[in-house]
Amino acid sequence: MNPSYFSSSDILQMETRTRAAFINSLSGFKSASLIGTIDNKGQTNLAIFSSVFHIGSNPALIGFINRPDTADRHTLENILATNCFTINHVHAGIYRQAHQSSARYPKAISEFEATGLTPEFLPLLAAPYVKESKIKYGLSLAETHHLVINGTILVIGKVEEIIIPENCVLPSGAIAIEQAETIAISGLDSYHNTQLLGRLSYAKLDRLPTDLI
Amino acid sequence: MNPSYFSSSDILQMETRTRAAFINSLSGFKSASLIGTIDNKGQTNLAIFSSVFHIGSNPALIGFINRPDTADRHTLENILATNCFTINHVHAGIYRQAHQSSARYPKAISEFEATGLTPEFLPLLAAPYVKESKIKYGLSLAETHHLVINGTILVIGKVEEIIIPENCVLPSGAIAIEQAETIAISGLDSYHNTQLLGRLSYAKLDRLPTDLI
Repeated sequence: MNPSYFSSSDILQMETRTRAAFINSLSGFKSASLIGTIDNKGQTNLAIFSSVFHIGSNPALIGFINRPDTADRHTLENILATNCFTINHVHAGIYRQAHQSSARYPKAISEFEATGLTPEFLPLLAAPYVKESKIKYGLSLAETHHLVINGTILVIGKVEEIIIPENCVLPSGAIAIEQAETIAISGLDSYHNTQLLGRLSYAKLDRLPTDLI
Repeated sequence: MNPSYFSSSDILQMETRTRAAFINSLSGFKSASLIGTIDNKGQTNLAIFSSVFHIGSNPALIGFINRPDTADRHTLENILATNCFTINHVHAGIYRQAHQSSARYPKAISEFEATGLTPEFLPLLAAPYVKESKIKYGLSLAETHHLVINGTILVIGKVEEIIIPENCVLPSGAIAIEQAETIAISGLDSYHNTQLLGRLSYAKLDRLPTDLI
């Protein structure tokens, strides 16, 4: 197997869409999440994000990257207006609708209606959940950072409530996200099921990790 | 299926390790990456990270979260000293060694030696790659942000070179990371193979996405 080499000037010379597909594949598998928001007039918004990531567990913090361009901006505008949002895992049964939420709908059209996913309101937060999603959680806005180098915004939320299917929490505390059919994304357009390869014991200096059940 | 509900006070009351496992599962599937660094005296360091994520493709930017505690700090210290690092995808053949790199080795011990993975030096950057890794890329330090709410650091790198197996770039530009056996992580300790569910066309307002080959 011969490796291929791409220099920074090779990357720079790629056609824009090709480079986007290429670089979006580079970070490995990504989470598949629908972010639900609402504005102060009650207009809902739903958008798929593959940049949701773990920041800390105490306090429980999750981040995502919001691009500054028009369609994506609705999510950030609504979060800044209401201080809250929901994150809803995409599972195999709804990945087509989830993908469709990335079309550039004008603000007056709710992606819930456009994609056929159902908004679900719970008492704690104003932002809507996705009824069809199995694992979902609500967050309050905690912190934002403007990333100078490309104008994107890191949005950090504090987890305020979590809804998951019954019996989905393992004895370790881990959530069996594969069992709940949560999927993974690669690049801009590929959706993947997963299959557990192994669960390993906490790494110690004096011995190699063993397989947990 | 009855959903289970966890309030913020339920989360707060969890035992520390249980909460870490629980909240680390919440963001969905995560990338599995080994970050390679070197200090100014030539001492190498290797650490597994599940927080590597895409920030932008033009310029090509990748970020990760560095915790402030002792063992993780070696990665950040080395990046600040040398302005560069490498990110190496974890595949099914090396996930045990990759996991073992998370043990709290003192700075004088290189995780390359401790885990049996092989450092590989290329001409452009001082930081070592993982020879056994199939998809790998080198970065220069671009920007850091101190996340006030929990003291972690967002490290942003600019991609300077990419090494991938020959014939792994699809016509769209996407890298076939599943074909290269890149794996995904859930929670703190679970490693997953993937299986392509579908690749969908760019979402448009006037029609539903179709399956691409």
